[in-house]
Amino acid sequence: MNITFLFYNGMTALDAIGPHEILSRLPGATVQRVALSAGKITTCSGLLLNADYALSEVTQSDVLVIPGGGKASSLSDYPEILDWIRLIHSKTTWTTSVCTGSLILGAAGILAGKKATTHWAVMDRLSRWGAEPVQERLVQSGKIITSAGVSAGIDMALTLAAKISGETVAKSLQLALEYDPEPPFDSGSPKKADPILLENLRKKMLAVFDNN
Amino acid sequence: MNITFLFYNGMTALDAIGPHEILSRLPGATVQRVALSAGKITTCSGLLLNADYALSEVTQSDVLVIPGGGKASSLSDYPEILDWIRLIHSKTTWTTSVCTGSLILGAAGILAGKKATTHWAVMDRLSRWGAEPVQERLVQSGKIITSAGVSAGIDMALTLAAKISGETVAKSLQLALEYDPEPPFDSGSPKKADPILLENLRKKMLAVFDNN
Repeated sequence: MNITFLFYNGMTALDAIGPHEILSRLPGATVQRVALSAGKITTCSGLLLNADYALSEVTQSDVLVIPGGGKASSLSDYPEILDWIRLIHSKTTWTTSVCTGSLILGAAGILAGKKATTHWAVMDRLSRWGAEPVQERLVQSGKIITSAGVSAGIDMALTLAAKISGETVAKSLQLALEYDPEPPFDSGSPKKADPILLENLRKKMLAVFDNN
Repeated sequence: MNITFLFYNGMTALDAIGPHEILSRLPGATVQRVALSAGKITTCSGLLLNADYALSEVTQSDVLVIPGGGKASSLSDYPEILDWIRLIHSKTTWTTSVCTGSLILGAAGILAGKKATTHWAVMDRLSRWGAEPVQERLVQSGKIITSAGVSAGIDMALTLAAKISGETVAKSLQLALEYDPEPPFDSGSPKKADPILLENLRKKMLAVFDNN
């Protein structure tokens, strides 16, 4: 089973690394990290990742994971990336996204008419691509699973792990990663956060997102 | 404010990237990633990270983060790493670890007589270094904060973010990362997991840990 992560400059590292830590441990999984060119990728926090392959070297995958990031919308400027996503998606068993990665799937045209989710701050952008925005932790639409902002990729990957390898494997991975969250605050979703904090952050994030 | 992550071959990427995604966004933070030698680091899932500096190039930091990994115990074979940890710790405001990173702090001799935590599967190993094992999500002992397995680094980093930059900043970061966890199963801690699954995983993880 091939699992392929799309990497790109400006991506959010945790969007990819959460699912990567889970999916790479599935029995029989081979994971590959792919970008426009092989080599160093600069994530939005300055951390460098590494892509093993250029897009042209990978022509199929059983699972595709598209992470998000402040620069996700700029990927619309790279038709070769969108073409590649369409090609891989045509052969996948599961096509998935984390955070604003769903806007890349949208730009590739594969969310039209489908329910999907993304980071809360840019939820309305999904409708630009004909998708129906749903504010949930993750949304399955056929073989496509989109998930909410950044950390939601962990929940998405555990859900996907159970679909691929069964609940026992998924539960064992949850225990291996000791994923028994105890957030010190209850400010992790727009429904729960302080309204002023929410609006300040929304403005700040949209300013970043729309300038990329 | 300098925040320094120790990187090493065999580390678990998520141990570092969870806190990195949070702490790198603190106001005024400068983050550096340091290893025995600058350059590529192979994590336990095959993903490559990059260290910006060699240990010898970094002599102080306000915050130190030590991630864990199956090869954490092998770092005892590198006295230069333990010396460096002691040097940096002597000047930090906060010294922290995720998962088996606390066993590296232990090997460096800085947990003797202190309460600490680590991944549940190796909890008893803390006493080898004179620490008092505590099965909690995170344990603060003076300026040292140790946290439980892998994903616990996210909770630790949000707690630390509040201590450094205040609760409003920490809550805003929680919202930015949409950290409102919804694990699909309730199998994330030894208290909650199925006993047979727990024992099978314990044996498997100890076999990996003790062979490194």
